[in-house]
Amino acid sequence: MRRKVYVTGSRPDIRVPFQEVGLGGGEPPVRLYDTSGPEGDDPPPRIRAGWIAERGPGDRVSQLHHARRGVVTPEMEFAAIREGTDPELVRAEIAAGRAILPANVNHPESEPMVIGNRFLVKINANIGTSAVSDSTAAEVEKLRWATRWGADTVMDLSTGRNIHETREHVIRNSAVPIGTVPLYQALEEVGGEPARLDWEVYRDTVIAQAEQGVDYMTVHAGVRLAHVPLAAERVTGIVSRGGSIMAAWCLAHHEENFLHTHFRELCEIFARYDVAFSLGDGLRPGSIADANDAAQFAELDTLGELTRIAWEYDVQVMVEGPGHVPMHKIKENVDRQQEVCGQAPFYTLGPLTTDVAPAYDHITSAIGAAVIGAFGTAMLCYVTPKEHLGLPDRDDVKEGVIAYKIAAHAADLAKGHPGAQARDDALSKARFEFRWEDQFALSLDPDRARSYHDATLPAAPAKTA
Amino acid sequence: MRRKVYVTGSRPDIRVPFQEVGLGGGEPPVRLYDTSGPEGDDPPPRIRAGWIAERGPGDRVSQLHHARRGVVTPEMEFAAIREGTDPELVRAEIAAGRAILPANVNHPESEPMVIGNRFLVKINANIGTSAVSDSTAAEVEKLRWATRWGADTVMDLSTGRNIHETREHVIRNSAVPIGTVPLYQALEEVGGEPARLDWEVYRDTVIAQAEQGVDYMTVHAGVRLAHVPLAAERVTGIVSRGGSIMAAWCLAHHEENFLHTHFRELCEIFARYDVAFSLGDGLRPGSIADANDAAQFAELDTLGELTRIAWEYDVQVMVEGPGHVPMHKIKENVDRQQEVCGQAPFYTLGPLTTDVAPAYDHITSAIGAAVIGAFGTAMLCYVTPKEHLGLPDRDDVKEGVIAYKIAAHAADLAKGHPGAQARDDALSKARFEFRWEDQFALSLDPDRARSYHDATLPAAPAKTA
Repeated sequence: MRRKVYVTGSRPDIRVPFQEVGLGGGEPPVRLYDTSGPEGDDPPPRIRAGWIAERGPGDRVSQLHHARRGVVTPEMEFAAIREGTDPELVRAEIAAGRAILPANVNHPESEPMVIGNRFLVKINANIGTSAVSDSTAAEVEKLRWATRWGADTVMDLSTGRNIHETREHVIRNSAVPIGTVPLYQALEEVGGEPARLDWEVYRDTVIAQAEQGVDYMTVHAGVRLAHVPLAAERVTGIVSRGGSIMAAWCLAHHEENFLHTHFRELCEIFARYDVAFSLGDGLRPGSIADANDAAQFAELDTLGELTRIAWEYDVQVMVEGPGHVPMHKIKENVDRQQEVCGQAPFYTLGPLTTDVAPAYDHITSAIGAAVIGAFGTAMLCYVTPKEHLGLPDRDDVKEGVIAYKIAAHAADLAKGHPGAQARDDALSKARFEFRWEDQFALSLDPDRARSYHDATLPAAPAKTA
Repeated sequence: MRRKVYVTGSRPDIRVPFQEVGLGGGEPPVRLYDTSGPEGDDPPPRIRAGWIAERGPGDRVSQLHHARRGVVTPEMEFAAIREGTDPELVRAEIAAGRAILPANVNHPESEPMVIGNRFLVKINANIGTSAVSDSTAAEVEKLRWATRWGADTVMDLSTGRNIHETREHVIRNSAVPIGTVPLYQALEEVGGEPARLDWEVYRDTVIAQAEQGVDYMTVHAGVRLAHVPLAAERVTGIVSRGGSIMAAWCLAHHEENFLHTHFRELCEIFARYDVAFSLGDGLRPGSIADANDAAQFAELDTLGELTRIAWEYDVQVMVEGPGHVPMHKIKENVDRQQEVCGQAPFYTLGPLTTDVAPAYDHITSAIGAAVIGAFGTAMLCYVTPKEHLGLPDRDDVKEGVIAYKIAAHAADLAKGHPGAQARDDALSKARFEFRWEDQFALSLDPDRARSYHDATLPAAPAKTA
């Protein structure tokens, strides 16, 4: 009932994928946004190679650079067709810094997509090897599994051996933008001791990853020396891994965070590859008790300053957010980020709306993600059922992605995103008319919907009754 | 690490159960609200028998009757101790109609609890036999399973054979209030044909159930003849089973709903047993497209009128709500119910915030439940992963209950309910200090939290490291 179709843009090499769901009952087909990438096991084609070549190299090659000059790139048009919106809107939002289109010139395989408050709410899935699980093949499999269920971007948070090789495989097999936290690899380079980190090691790591094609990087430049004491009285201190590393470095050297002091040099590097900043919230709250506190908001003020510096270099920016926030404090969190950071896209982890349900944090956080999405957050980083407890496996990745597709879609409906409700309406109509096959085909998870139905009413006639 | 403890009230026969969680790290124990009932397989003791006998029989025996006369009953004190609040607050809220304490005089086994906006958000779990699954023992097992995980009330929606006997077993084994939809049994009495229903059959069914001890009953008296055409243009028509039955009856006879015309007689019956009304929303929306429409709000106006009539008879009332509502329409739904129904407690099914995720509707609806709870809904009726697809089994019941405990607790935090955050803080502190056993013991689901942890890091030292 579902098949992949392509919509061609203003030039024949702009071919935008959709999942088309054919329906019974005389209903027109429904087209769904498609993140699944190429079918089969082959790596995705280098669809952007020609567009990148046409524009040529330069010190500033970012989509923001072109958007500010009034150019609608093929990437912008591609993303606009996916969204069902005007390419000019995509360009204007990128130019204003309110949206980003993460697209490293060395990742020509990526299918362009746009992250911003005016567009569909996106979700990110984290994957990555660790000391106890370091199979490159398994990570590529998780990548494809996550995008099959709807992940819009994937972050490779590998920390074990072969980080570089794993990332190469992930990027070459990815039709979605790939994000990383370069600090993790830099720390491996210095034997895992934060105090031994320095700008040169970090810079070389960033350049190596940018060369590979990483589309956005989390940079913990907002954890300033003066902020660290603000976290001292917290219930859960500093829970961000990157935040902990940089806080440890600051305290060990009693110096300002080298990512902050060298931030302009980072911008110059990012500008050459079109790597987007994901400004990390190293002081994000790790518990309900610590939400919206002085430490978080002090860092946020710094992130606002850094956002404007990055924009000077035509570098795209999104800003990361918490974490753990009770529902009544979510709106303040978004509003403050939007104000302080000049409306740069907000990218939040959850937030979890309570701390009492380990093993169900995909649900505690899907609640927060839906609410924060409705208030204007542009991308939601998923949380799996294993959060706080262990490493997610294939099933956990799927549970996390589906929970976040729900949150993102609920937010799209709440924001009145044009066209978002068409899928709900088609599915509800199919439900009311007992067109079970249509209901399954329109579901976020047709396999599970069908199996739950069949567990009670297995006979085929029951599905068309 | 968890054990059952009792707090004694102003008289020795008021003994209120809690789960006490002993902690390491020099932390004080945490006491959790406990719905699990007696340990072991024995039926619960008749703890209210003496209190009911002391007050004697009468035409008006309800908690509302006593509250209005300024009496703090033992039931009110019991509920207040559970909530950690003043018994006078419980009395005052019941007297004002803003809270109910469902407690049929023929269900002396129930541990009193209070449902209202000023108190902890409660959750209901539905169980019940059907034509394809009619084991009485299985329903009692589901009841205990649901209350073990935190269900505050249970509705027995049985529709198969042996409805009466099943209900008897459920009530006699239940330490939580039991709700029913008498219309389902009445329909069985007339061979399943809505047109053959009449007031006498319905009345006799209600009396039989009230005699057994049902604590609250869903009554679809708001589906008036004039409302039925309002649902004609909907995407999903009338999806409430009770609503469909009464709409069919109204159309078949072209007469006003007999539950509406006989509503005062129902009130007289309810007043003699202290059965509470759960005024059914037979025209609740069954899809995002139909949310907050004319049909729903027309019925709501009628429910407001019926609420005030019930109050004339000292009968306790809560009002049921949807269903399927996108996030941006949830607040209007609560505000309107509170205004139209004189602040009677609102009791909603979900709502589901999107229609696109069958098999995950415990999540689509936990989002809506958390939001509507934060806006003042007093009780949330759970939705299981099998919603729309099939009959929930034991695992589904647990998934639904846990998702709704999360939603209710997130709402309690958002409302700033006194004491609600203590559990989050204790768990977060345990997490930060790597006291894994404490973290498990404070979880909504210690078993699963432990098993997820052990799947990655099975060694015992890792739990105390």
